[in-house]
Amino acid sequence: MVSAGKQDDMTTPIRLGMVGGGQGAFIGGVHRMASRLDGHYQLVAGALSSNRERAKASAAELGLSPDRSYGSFEEMAKAESAREDGIEAVSIVTPNHMHFPAAKAFLEAGIHVICDKPMTSNLDDANTLAEIAEKSGCLFVLTHNYSGYPMIRQARQMVVDGVLGEITLIQAEYPQDWLTEPIEAEGQKQASWRTDPKQSGAGGAIGDIGTHAYQLGSFVSGLKAESVAADLDHFVDGRKLDDNAHVMLRYGERNGRRAKGMIWVSQVAPGNENGLKLRIYGTKGGLEWEQENPNYLHYTPFGEPTRILTRGGPGTGEAAASVTRIPPGHPEGYLEAFATLYTEAAGAIRAMRGGGSRPERLHLPDVSDGVDGLRFVEACVKSSQADAAWTRLDSL
Amino acid sequence: MVSAGKQDDMTTPIRLGMVGGGQGAFIGGVHRMASRLDGHYQLVAGALSSNRERAKASAAELGLSPDRSYGSFEEMAKAESAREDGIEAVSIVTPNHMHFPAAKAFLEAGIHVICDKPMTSNLDDANTLAEIAEKSGCLFVLTHNYSGYPMIRQARQMVVDGVLGEITLIQAEYPQDWLTEPIEAEGQKQASWRTDPKQSGAGGAIGDIGTHAYQLGSFVSGLKAESVAADLDHFVDGRKLDDNAHVMLRYGERNGRRAKGMIWVSQVAPGNENGLKLRIYGTKGGLEWEQENPNYLHYTPFGEPTRILTRGGPGTGEAAASVTRIPPGHPEGYLEAFATLYTEAAGAIRAMRGGGSRPERLHLPDVSDGVDGLRFVEACVKSSQADAAWTRLDSL
Amino acid sequence: MVSAGKQDDMTTPIRLGMVGGGQGAFIGGVHRMASRLDGHYQLVAGALSSNRERAKASAAELGLSPDRSYGSFEEMAKAESAREDGIEAVSIVTPNHMHFPAAKAFLEAGIHVICDKPMTSNLDDANTLAEIAEKSGCLFVLTHNYSGYPMIRQARQMVVDGVLGEITLIQAEYPQDWLTEPIEAEGQKQASWRTDPKQSGAGGAIGDIGTHAYQLGSFVSGLKAESVAADLDHFVDGRKLDDNAHVMLRYGERNGRRAKGMIWVSQVAPGNENGLKLRIYGTKGGLEWEQENPNYLHYTPFGEPTRILTRGGPGTGEAAASVTRIPPGHPEGYLEAFATLYTEAAGAIRAMRGGGSRPERLHLPDVSDGVDGLRFVEACVKSSQADAAWTRLDSL
Amino acid sequence: MVSAGKQDDMTTPIRLGMVGGGQGAFIGGVHRMASRLDGHYQLVAGALSSNRERAKASAAELGLSPDRSYGSFEEMAKAESAREDGIEAVSIVTPNHMHFPAAKAFLEAGIHVICDKPMTSNLDDANTLAEIAEKSGCLFVLTHNYSGYPMIRQARQMVVDGVLGEITLIQAEYPQDWLTEPIEAEGQKQASWRTDPKQSGAGGAIGDIGTHAYQLGSFVSGLKAESVAADLDHFVDGRKLDDNAHVMLRYGERNGRRAKGMIWVSQVAPGNENGLKLRIYGTKGGLEWEQENPNYLHYTPFGEPTRILTRGGPGTGEAAASVTRIPPGHPEGYLEAFATLYTEAAGAIRAMRGGGSRPERLHLPDVSDGVDGLRFVEACVKSSQADAAWTRLDSL
Repeated sequence: MVSAGKQDDMTTPIRLGMVGGGQGAFIGGVHRMASRLDGHYQLVAGALSSNRERAKASAAELGLSPDRSYGSFEEMAKAESAREDGIEAVSIVTPNHMHFPAAKAFLEAGIHVICDKPMTSNLDDANTLAEIAEKSGCLFVLTHNYSGYPMIRQARQMVVDGVLGEITLIQAEYPQDWLTEPIEAEGQKQASWRTDPKQSGAGGAIGDIGTHAYQLGSFVSGLKAESVAADLDHFVDGRKLDDNAHVMLRYGERNGRRAKGMIWVSQVAPGNENGLKLRIYGTKGGLEWEQENPNYLHYTPFGEPTRILTRGGPGTGEAAASVTRIPPGHPEGYLEAFATLYTEAAGAIRAMRGGGSRPERLHLPDVSDGVDGLRFVEACVKSSQADAAWTRLDSL
Repeated sequence: MVSAGKQDDMTTPIRLGMVGGGQGAFIGGVHRMASRLDGHYQLVAGALSSNRERAKASAAELGLSPDRSYGSFEEMAKAESAREDGIEAVSIVTPNHMHFPAAKAFLEAGIHVICDKPMTSNLDDANTLAEIAEKSGCLFVLTHNYSGYPMIRQARQMVVDGVLGEITLIQAEYPQDWLTEPIEAEGQKQASWRTDPKQSGAGGAIGDIGTHAYQLGSFVSGLKAESVAADLDHFVDGRKLDDNAHVMLRYGERNGRRAKGMIWVSQVAPGNENGLKLRIYGTKGGLEWEQENPNYLHYTPFGEPTRILTRGGPGTGEAAASVTRIPPGHPEGYLEAFATLYTEAAGAIRAMRGGGSRPERLHLPDVSDGVDGLRFVEACVKSSQADAAWTRLDSL
Repeated sequence: MVSAGKQDDMTTPIRLGMVGGGQGAFIGGVHRMASRLDGHYQLVAGALSSNRERAKASAAELGLSPDRSYGSFEEMAKAESAREDGIEAVSIVTPNHMHFPAAKAFLEAGIHVICDKPMTSNLDDANTLAEIAEKSGCLFVLTHNYSGYPMIRQARQMVVDGVLGEITLIQAEYPQDWLTEPIEAEGQKQASWRTDPKQSGAGGAIGDIGTHAYQLGSFVSGLKAESVAADLDHFVDGRKLDDNAHVMLRYGERNGRRAKGMIWVSQVAPGNENGLKLRIYGTKGGLEWEQENPNYLHYTPFGEPTRILTRGGPGTGEAAASVTRIPPGHPEGYLEAFATLYTEAAGAIRAMRGGGSRPERLHLPDVSDGVDGLRFVEACVKSSQADAAWTRLDSL
Repeated sequence: MVSAGKQDDMTTPIRLGMVGGGQGAFIGGVHRMASRLDGHYQLVAGALSSNRERAKASAAELGLSPDRSYGSFEEMAKAESAREDGIEAVSIVTPNHMHFPAAKAFLEAGIHVICDKPMTSNLDDANTLAEIAEKSGCLFVLTHNYSGYPMIRQARQMVVDGVLGEITLIQAEYPQDWLTEPIEAEGQKQASWRTDPKQSGAGGAIGDIGTHAYQLGSFVSGLKAESVAADLDHFVDGRKLDDNAHVMLRYGERNGRRAKGMIWVSQVAPGNENGLKLRIYGTKGGLEWEQENPNYLHYTPFGEPTRILTRGGPGTGEAAASVTRIPPGHPEGYLEAFATLYTEAAGAIRAMRGGGSRPERLHLPDVSDGVDGLRFVEACVKSSQADAAWTRLDSL
């Protein structure tokens, strides 16, 4: 069980700030709920919008003290790091292009960062940020939230334990349908920035959800792609970024074997909401998991019947149990998986209070996942521009 | 959307106490997470265990101030009602037999009560408590948490809107398997009190999960059972309470038509975790919902293809939307449904602050649901003792 | 594998006749396809309709020789038994009330009978027919076709092998929706005779599909009901027979334990086509099977993850394999299950050719299943008339 | 409804021969059952094995007259075409490399051919056979049996009717697991020839099941691939043909739009039996279908809830109804879909009896599908050899 409700120093919850996430935003609210669920954080400061009026109104709604509602992240980083009771950590939940400068500002101010993905708009920034994070000594968490799902932890553990034998195939997909029509042209806020290269970076669907699909496959398999052949496209006339991506992957060598895989992501596939699905196969068995019904993991030892493993149920191990809150049959969902990242971050932050060093062996996606994600996106974009030629990720 | 993260008077979260829910308990942790998710409560006091040592240790873990960790609920009700900053509401999460005296004490002290189900050990107490609650002017919420699921709200709305025509059939079931073997004999805490008539009341499975199944059918259909024919049994030798119940139901008249139904609940059906399922049929259509994958509602207008309605997706209405936190395809679960009851209670409590009256038209299960639940349990027990003779609920 | 395509005396396929099944019928065509699939039968004679014109036209369509198209079953039994090359077996696929006289005529003429269910219109006739069948020395097969599904055979074998421990619960249901509206009033042929007591007998849904649900539970569990408490009803005004039945069952004793169960059947539950579902639980495990996706059997050994057993897949045994035609993952369906009964009957008929005796240990539903089915129907009707009082099946 | 049991000239069933399909074979038995189900064929001759002893024994089992059991297809084509009562059609069910010479022999003998897929071992032969078939005036049916499923016909009709708008994406997959281990090394007959380039041709999985996946996508969408980028591989050491294929596809232009797609086929993905799945998306909606539960088609009109269309149920049209045998909720399976091809072929053959010309507008896969399939396979092999370079199908 995650230490839900068990907080040895509850009297000192972690003081949290937030950049972005004002009125009309989606992911900001998710981060706030995630931070609250297990009781480890208290939101005390924010630069909630680049629009000052909206920032102020949002802060009032959230009960922030007016003097800790800032007009910009620069201002906030400066002021909070100067306060005795300043924030210990900040959540960055802006559109993609703001992740880099904001994260940089807080890390340089000695404040831990919990940042939405993709980490930056481009690989150069990602590499720079990785150096800054390293130098800062601060915790940097990238909220690849799907890796917080208990059955994903279970899957990862099973791979580590060799239950699947050598990994041969990693099939991931993440279809959606919400951009089937050109709603960005009608000013839908979520659609507008996600289809705008200036705010999103070079990748559309490949950046927004492709990074999730790729990260999840890597998280579970422990493997990184060596090269990709990608065919990015958009199926809405005039759209500037890809809304569909077909990718073939060749993974790096392990134990003399190289896995292969595919990723399909789409935002124009009617009937799909958040159809993230991961299937991993090895020489001895296979696993299948679907995000929309995440409490189940289908496991087939080759030559035996498929088992339905349930979160908290028989046949699951410590890796899943440690991030499980309630008994099997009572579904946990997206917010719980998200909250697990926050709670694991809280554990690390508390361990670092008073000068402790960053704990080893965290399951938390971090700055290296951010670099990998950007590398993946840029390799896909480059490959697609070269008519899907195989493109090495280390060539970038 | 529930007002997740939007708290107009966040500076004054609701001060909450808890009775029960100390170390080793299950539902106490659930209540705490539910109270935290949307940020409306702060847990500040507790009588967390009838064992003083355990109470103390539990309070410390939760960061309660030692002077607000009480040895008994009586003590707590007295002390807290006397404080300027005393609790405004209390969560009662003890074994069933303690619900009544605890709820009575807090209601009489003018403190709002959020109580786990079944409300009391017997119908007499339930009726008494109903009077007390009425007289108190306080809010009394019974945590029939399944009625907080968005797709259950959607189903209820569809019945109200006449989409199903006249209701004819209500088929509910709630199979589990955790009591397949006599684990109460081995001291498993959850099993021990649930199979002990002194702590549970006259119903075993019928009280623990039968009340949920019955309440859910009533909540959605708007109908109450007029009589039941029940066959309760236990399939583990020596067990004192039923671990399986077969019930046929005849519902009251509406628009000249009487619906019928069945309830099956079991704790000895291997392969079932929390298999709560509700199917409701009418002259014009049918609905099907399963708790273990709760973000979907199957709706069939008679003579047309079945539709898969999704939480937050097309074809769902305001009733579901108002209790939805995140977009379709990102699953919400058990804790979110539970949290919805807490959040709706918070709305009511805030409205009553400073002497406002209890809001009308709440969706919150209350003291009358508690009375209905006990009436259902006692009717089933009585029917079963009379060899499954039809037993009117109003005969009790 | 069933001996599909392997017929050692193919040069002499079994000569088959049919009573009923003319134009506009449903089940007659099913019997014909089932008889053809494995190549063991040749349809050579028929009394295909009580309407002579329709009988003749139907026979022509089927390529029957005009002189072997009869105007009545009496005529056919007489003529065919007198022919050197007369039929060896007859399929009886008329409305229920004709089953008895037709079966009697053919058995008395020394012709094997394959008869649709329910066997007769009432228990008296069923008992009489049982005596006639016994005396005749002929094979009598009752087409409870669901017992031909491979995964049902698998389930039955697992019960016999003790995999589930002692059986405690048998939950069966068979909801449909096709009679939600009063289509019998509009002359729909299938609906008209099924809702007419003169043609159907005393049971409506309970006879038409309740017998299937009951037989299937008995077939798999090896248990018979000792008593039932039934609440039959119709939800369409003016309908003469039940279109919905709620039944609680108490099964006979085995190894000191008595199983219980429920049956729900309905023809007025919108969204259900042929939702036959069987769940059987014991002290050591549980099984779940659904007719609409029949190639899978969910098996849970208590305390372990659920296994998905597939027809022909790993973990299935000889009982299923012997009635499996094609590899796992290539779905078999309703017609294949039906054909299995025909093929098993062919094996028996061939063994009896030239005076051999009826083989022992057949899996084929027979005249005793027919008696049990009528006993079940009449007990349910009697119980329902007595306000759902427990009614012993042996009291009839 | 297919004309199951309605055969206007039943007295003259179509005389059928078979090449291959002797003892130990799989697909031969399937063809025989498929030919029998609707009663349109009578198997009267065969060259059932290249092994004379096995051929003879197989023929005896099937009840063939000894003088019509041939030692080779050449012999059989010659002898049967010379007989007054010679076969009218032949089923060719050998390993792939024998399809071409056998089909050639029978077509040139004026006998209709029903041939298993892939049509030939290579594209050259396929083109040659296409010419021969054309010249022969005979019917040539390629048993891409999945295109016989009613819900596939429904899907195709919906595309034709414009229900999906313009097609944008065609995602097909067909994972299996039976070649996860090197069973060809142990002499498993099915595995041996399928992994042997001499008997299978240049494609392994891509030829065996990739052709099915590609054909199905084309059959439903009406689109053909213009170019492919393929990465074929084998994950069992020493295997000579691909056991896994990743393919990206670009389809030809229609109405100014070009669809794209992916195909994944595998024989080394543990937990998959015959996981053929097709998803097709357009500008106005999406469809999803799975072969292992084939009686359902998920249809989502963009912006509305997903509908579950059922075979024979509401919302399905004439295209499905015409190949449906039994009511919705009673599952049809693989053999019924296969039988539909035989039955449609029977209709065509009967129409051509006595010199009628080949009917237009058949849904039957034919020689052009065979050419397309080989073109697809060879393009994939060529692309894969060129490191997945885009390869035009018309470049071959």
